[in-house]
Amino acid sequence: MDETALSGLLAKQEIGEVVLRYCRGVDRLDMDLVRGAYHPGGIDHHTGFDGPVEDFVAWVEPLLRTLGGTRHEVHNHLAEVVGDTAVAETYVTARHWTMPDAQLGRGAERANFTTGVRYVDHLERRGGRWGIVERFAIREWHRVDAAPTAGQGLPGPSGTRDRDDAVYALRRRLFALP
Amino acid sequence: MDETALSGLLAKQEIGEVVLRYCRGVDRLDMDLVRGAYHPGGIDHHTGFDGPVEDFVAWVEPLLRTLGGTRHEVHNHLAEVVGDTAVAETYVTARHWTMPDAQLGRGAERANFTTGVRYVDHLERRGGRWGIVERFAIREWHRVDAAPTAGQGLPGPSGTRDRDDAVYALRRRLFALP
Amino acid sequence: MDETALSGLLAKQEIGEVVLRYCRGVDRLDMDLVRGAYHPGGIDHHTGFDGPVEDFVAWVEPLLRTLGGTRHEVHNHLAEVVGDTAVAETYVTARHWTMPDAQLGRGAERANFTTGVRYVDHLERRGGRWGIVERFAIREWHRVDAAPTAGQGLPGPSGTRDRDDAVYALRRRLFALP
Repeated sequence: MDETALSGLLAKQEIGEVVLRYCRGVDRLDMDLVRGAYHPGGIDHHTGFDGPVEDFVAWVEPLLRTLGGTRHEVHNHLAEVVGDTAVAETYVTARHWTMPDAQLGRGAERANFTTGVRYVDHLERRGGRWGIVERFAIREWHRVDAAPTAGQGLPGPSGTRDRDDAVYALRRRLFALP
Repeated sequence: MDETALSGLLAKQEIGEVVLRYCRGVDRLDMDLVRGAYHPGGIDHHTGFDGPVEDFVAWVEPLLRTLGGTRHEVHNHLAEVVGDTAVAETYVTARHWTMPDAQLGRGAERANFTTGVRYVDHLERRGGRWGIVERFAIREWHRVDAAPTAGQGLPGPSGTRDRDDAVYALRRRLFALP
Repeated sequence: MDETALSGLLAKQEIGEVVLRYCRGVDRLDMDLVRGAYHPGGIDHHTGFDGPVEDFVAWVEPLLRTLGGTRHEVHNHLAEVVGDTAVAETYVTARHWTMPDAQLGRGAERANFTTGVRYVDHLERRGGRWGIVERFAIREWHRVDAAPTAGQGLPGPSGTRDRDDAVYALRRRLFALP
């Protein structure tokens, strides 16, 4: 029985979930989830920001709150693990859209931008937990798109940018989570 | 050897495949595959529909057949499993395009719409099979885009919206599947 | 302990990585990586090309070099494995954009095209390595989009289309890879 193979699979699963929880955190404005993707002091090299995650969160949260919504869509995720160290590359399409009442404002259309990014992450396993030690958020392209229509007015489920969203509600209901 | 870890990985793999088979079913108009992603009586909360999967399939199939094609592109998929219960969130971009001969019709351009969705699923394992018990198909944004050109006229492989498509043909050839 | 289940998971992980390394190879112009996704003589049925991988690489590399950049974004990946044979379907959005100084040229806007593709792959495990034996690259739709802005001018990390890119640099630094 291949113990090494299983622990390799487990490490890759955990690393993939680190990246996915980061995206959930950004899109639902759950900053604890964003912070928890990194180890303390982990560095983020970002467009317009460079420094530790604690400062990154303080910088990015107010920016996110000026928007109507975001989606950080994860595509290719390829991780290599050697012991307690990993390199992971993740392709992401980050969509940003305006507040409904901002769509008439001057310059508001610039907030409707989509960008193709690659996260190149150095991760480490410390105390059994995988976290980001250093992230390079590589901007590949961006474009201002026509404003989309937000889903809130439609006859069906809509989401929220907080812990009232359906995914948190379902976790609380089924798993008795806080 | 970590039996629990392996069964957790297996559950997540199976849950991920439930979502992927649903998407294949919708995009290839294979309604048995769509239905099979749910347990009998499983509820779908959808834009414009709310009820059990049996009615959902009867409602959605004729709508899909008015279109030239669809792609339900899966991005982030994050599942949590406790025993035989799971919560999974899946980001999807659903692209819809018109029939070629409908592109001149009045209002036809509205069929060329793309929407960002999140499926928030309550799944259960019953009789060893994971299936959806309740789905919240959360509409986040949508937009009518310029009509794309369908791939059928190009010098290379093209697909079909039925079980003649290349993926079914290859499965039949290699695995002697029906 | 379920040895069969574990080897099934491992096979699927390895098959998924074959597809991801192909995409990295194309996007970083690392043709060894592209070639290595196939077994020698593996056939690619592509839009505008049909033949063995050795000829495919010779055909596609100069085309890629006329562009400013590409992203082959992987979505749904669904593999079925029977022994040493597999069928995998992979949804891909392939984005292509122009060289900055080509954006004024006549016809250059046509290079800013996005296409939705499905790779339908027959893979085999030979000598312990999964590789593509035959690929059907099914074109589903394509569209010329507005030119995006490349990320190189922004204040933050940017990438390159060679082995100087951040993901290769990080692998060399952490893993002492060549």
